[in-house]
Amino acid sequence: MANYDVVIIGGGPAGIIAGVTGLKQNPGKSFLMIKEEEKGLVPCGIPYVFHDIGSVDKNIMGPKPFVDAGGKVVVDTVNKIDVENKKVIISSGDEFNYDKLVFATGSEVVIPTFIPGHDLDGVEYIRKSYNRIKELKEKTDIAQNIVVIGGGFIGVEMAEQLSKAGKNVSLVEMEKYCLSKAFSENICQVAEEAILNSGVKLHAGVKVAKIEGENGKVKSVLLENGETIVTDIVIATIGYKPRVELAKSVGIKINKKGAILVDNYMRTSADNVYAAGDCAGTKGFITGNVDSVMLASTATAEARTLGYNIDSIKLKRNMAGTLSVFSTEIAGKAFASAGAIEHSAKGSNIDYSVGSFKDADRHPGSFADTSELYLKLIVSPSDGVIIGAEMYGGKSIGELVNVLALTIQKSVSVFELVTFQFGTHPLLTGAPTKYILVKAAENAIVNMKM
Amino acid sequence: MANYDVVIIGGGPAGIIAGVTGLKQNPGKSFLMIKEEEKGLVPCGIPYVFHDIGSVDKNIMGPKPFVDAGGKVVVDTVNKIDVENKKVIISSGDEFNYDKLVFATGSEVVIPTFIPGHDLDGVEYIRKSYNRIKELKEKTDIAQNIVVIGGGFIGVEMAEQLSKAGKNVSLVEMEKYCLSKAFSENICQVAEEAILNSGVKLHAGVKVAKIEGENGKVKSVLLENGETIVTDIVIATIGYKPRVELAKSVGIKINKKGAILVDNYMRTSADNVYAAGDCAGTKGFITGNVDSVMLASTATAEARTLGYNIDSIKLKRNMAGTLSVFSTEIAGKAFASAGAIEHSAKGSNIDYSVGSFKDADRHPGSFADTSELYLKLIVSPSDGVIIGAEMYGGKSIGELVNVLALTIQKSVSVFELVTFQFGTHPLLTGAPTKYILVKAAENAIVNMKM
Repeated sequence: MANYDVVIIGGGPAGIIAGVTGLKQNPGKSFLMIKEEEKGLVPCGIPYVFHDIGSVDKNIMGPKPFVDAGGKVVVDTVNKIDVENKKVIISSGDEFNYDKLVFATGSEVVIPTFIPGHDLDGVEYIRKSYNRIKELKEKTDIAQNIVVIGGGFIGVEMAEQLSKAGKNVSLVEMEKYCLSKAFSENICQVAEEAILNSGVKLHAGVKVAKIEGENGKVKSVLLENGETIVTDIVIATIGYKPRVELAKSVGIKINKKGAILVDNYMRTSADNVYAAGDCAGTKGFITGNVDSVMLASTATAEARTLGYNIDSIKLKRNMAGTLSVFSTEIAGKAFASAGAIEHSAKGSNIDYSVGSFKDADRHPGSFADTSELYLKLIVSPSDGVIIGAEMYGGKSIGELVNVLALTIQKSVSVFELVTFQFGTHPLLTGAPTKYILVKAAENAIVNMKM
Repeated sequence: MANYDVVIIGGGPAGIIAGVTGLKQNPGKSFLMIKEEEKGLVPCGIPYVFHDIGSVDKNIMGPKPFVDAGGKVVVDTVNKIDVENKKVIISSGDEFNYDKLVFATGSEVVIPTFIPGHDLDGVEYIRKSYNRIKELKEKTDIAQNIVVIGGGFIGVEMAEQLSKAGKNVSLVEMEKYCLSKAFSENICQVAEEAILNSGVKLHAGVKVAKIEGENGKVKSVLLENGETIVTDIVIATIGYKPRVELAKSVGIKINKKGAILVDNYMRTSADNVYAAGDCAGTKGFITGNVDSVMLASTATAEARTLGYNIDSIKLKRNMAGTLSVFSTEIAGKAFASAGAIEHSAKGSNIDYSVGSFKDADRHPGSFADTSELYLKLIVSPSDGVIIGAEMYGGKSIGELVNVLALTIQKSVSVFELVTFQFGTHPLLTGAPTKYILVKAAENAIVNMKM
């Protein structure tokens, strides 16, 4: 039996960053990571394996930074945890004693058990596993027709990539619009256009009635409107849920969204036991209510907090809650949001005003690579503090959303933004006379008074 | 004689934005703009007229937003101001009474009178004038060999664009590196590589001894190291100075950098007289000392403050001083800085630590459009507050520098950044496990302790 100061279960972004940060902050302490597969994947890169990256092996993310920092890795499955004796037992029978235990067990796909035919051969899922994605890639490579069920980020990205790869792709989303958890209706409409531009056949606002098969194998998808889509493969991307069985098995408290309950420093209900990443609970940035955010960026922010503070609280965590920052690109058009969006604010009974502006992302707009850039701010009307933002445009969106993420986290108001100083350049941004952040803030000020 | 509530002298970014903002904030008030040429230019777009944009007429910025908001424009030159009687007299003889007067007279090129031969035919300047740039474009179109003197932003951008346009371009900079006012030596070296990649022949660390001519026309440039560069045209871009003769003529106070002295709300030493943009003084963001920043982005931030507060102070200006935010792109590589850089901090006796990180700007880095991204933070070591940042990379730099601009303006510390939440996406940014802002902040924390 080996002894470790810290044992981490899981080797995804949360496990790696908790380990690396913990090792750097606690030189001399011993860290063990137990992970199920030798090779790991960049989770958000998975859809791009199917076209833009082109190969699963070019999307590898292993525990090398953790090993380089002095951590030890064992590839196996945890069978049992003995919290009394602070011990982890793996499938091989080996046991490891820990002083601190970290759950970074991630999430697992939600199986649409409510859809008849979900258990047919040819119904596939996007699992964050090197081996499973490798298998799926082989299957899609030979398929002609593919139906993707679920128009969230992964569903849309998968559909776009498979279409780019020359497949005949149909995307089915039961809500009126795809990506509606991250964007207001007017932005969802622009995204819909981009999805259609990518060649994907979109079926939105309709549910799947059943998946039909022949000899146990998928043959078609029947929609509730009576339409039948003949297909070789179905990829169901209706969601993920925290992987918490192990934690549950030792009596660690689970929140009402099914994730491990944690405090601001990622401490669970059990002494010396921590959790970070998809398996750990989050709370809403504005309401403080139990929320459910599963993003690699969120996971790494949590893991850093965990790593810095695993011995004692050394670094105050500056957070009111988990801020979801989403971004994606569909058919060359980028979309992003941070914090509250219009219908999430409405749903949480948050009073809000909006301010928006549309402009070119170069100046003058006569450069060849110019894209239309649109920004909508969600603002608290009593004090002008920005609580959310939604946007679309060219690739500059990827960092523009982080200007907004910082704005929200620092409670910056639209009044401040108006006199703030930003940089612009013809080849890189819109014009200084109408920098989008300032113009959207000015528009919000006008709307707040109405 | 016509009466106006506000008369603005100048139609560049400062004049336009002061006017538009003032009109929107003061509906019913009358605004007049007096400008020298009918057509205006996007100032920072000027170098791109010579290749990427390709035409002066595609880089037009007129007073349309001001006119649309209800402003009146007169194209003429101001001859005289009578502050006693609050009156402006233009060349045509027309007189306009004002209640408030705004100087937005901009800047003018510095003529290198210390260089023998500067007055030869064929020595040209980058003047922010439609007519003058149109003339210069015609001259460069027929020139084969061009020498650019001065490796600041405009000089470097001009050299790069003229080289792209097929000219044989030599760039002479007396400092060891080009762009050394905006970047530390290690970044200047990367910029130098980009300049060379653009095909420009670089002569750095050497002064021009004289410009040699034949029959009153430029023939060659003699450097102090004895080298002679044969050329058709010389473009001198050694700097700009505030245009303040008019303001001076009526006794308005000028600061020691030669700009109109203003307070936080752009009020000059004379009652009811304001100034914004290149002609107006700035103070250092950290020291509060008299500084000299002439950027369109700065001009518009000042003009917005002026426009909101021209009647009474309505919008508190959130600024400790003028934050210079520079960005550019050379041969496809982008460079940016905000606030203090290493040698400006040293020069102002500011104690500082640095933190840096280098990464791909996509994740995984196997995407075709991946660029190397580098960020250096300049941090106050006593409290970890970020006071400056320098960076290079792909086009995402254009908005990444604005994350930093906001960070500096809100006095965010590296300790906060480490647990802050940012968004990432494979096609748009680096990986969440090593988001550059967080990693550079972590590196700064390590360096601060040393």
